[in-house]
Amino acid sequence: MDSSTNRALPDSDVGIYECEVRLKFRIIEEQLTMTNKESLVETLVDAFAYGSDEYLEALDSAVDIQQLQDVGQASPQMRRQLIRLRNSSRLA
Amino acid sequence: MDSSTNRALPDSDVGIYECEVRLKFRIIEEQLTMTNKESLVETLVDAFAYGSDEYLEALDSAVDIQQLQDVGQASPQMRRQLIRLRNSSRLA
Repeated sequence: MDSSTNRALPDSDVGIYECEVRLKFRIIEEQLTMTNKESLVETLVDAFAYGSDEYLEALDSAVDIQQLQDVGQASPQMRRQLIRLRNSSRLA
Repeated sequence: MDSSTNRALPDSDVGIYECEVRLKFRIIEEQLTMTNKESLVETLVDAFAYGSDEYLEALDSAVDIQQLQDVGQASPQMRRQLIRLRNSSRLA
C-alpha cells in the first residue's frame, strides 16, 4: 500500500519532530480517576491505540508537528540515533 | 501488583468517562508531515504507546477525565456494554 517505501530519501527527510497530539474519546472503565497520572496516561493511550469498539469511542483528535530546527535540544540518545540514520541513508 | 483486582466494586464505579489526553514528545521520523492526519495520529499514538527510547522522547503529558453524567450521549454500543457490565457486577 505504501508506494514510497522504495523511494530514495534525501538526508533532510530523516529528522527530529516535535509533536503534540490531542485525543478526545469516551471510555468505559472502573475507577479510572483512582489511578496515578502516569499509569493513567499509559492506560488511556494503550486503550486508544487498540482502537474504537464497545469500550471506546473516539471523538476528536488533533496533531501539531514541527521539525526541530535545533537538534541540540533533543536527548543525546536521539541525536546519536539521528546521526546513525543519516549516515546509513547516505551509504545506502 | 494490583491489589484492587479482587475487590468488590459498587455499580457506580463502572462508568463512561470522557477523556482528553495531550501528549508532547519528540520523535525521529522520515517525512512525517507527508502522511494524512488519520494515519499520522495512529502512527504517533502507537509510537508513544511503545515508550521512550532512542527514537522517541516523551516531554509532557496531561489528562483530563470526567465521568459522563448523561450516558445517552454515548454510542449505542457503549451504552449496551455498560448495562451488560453493571448487570454482571451485580450478579457476581
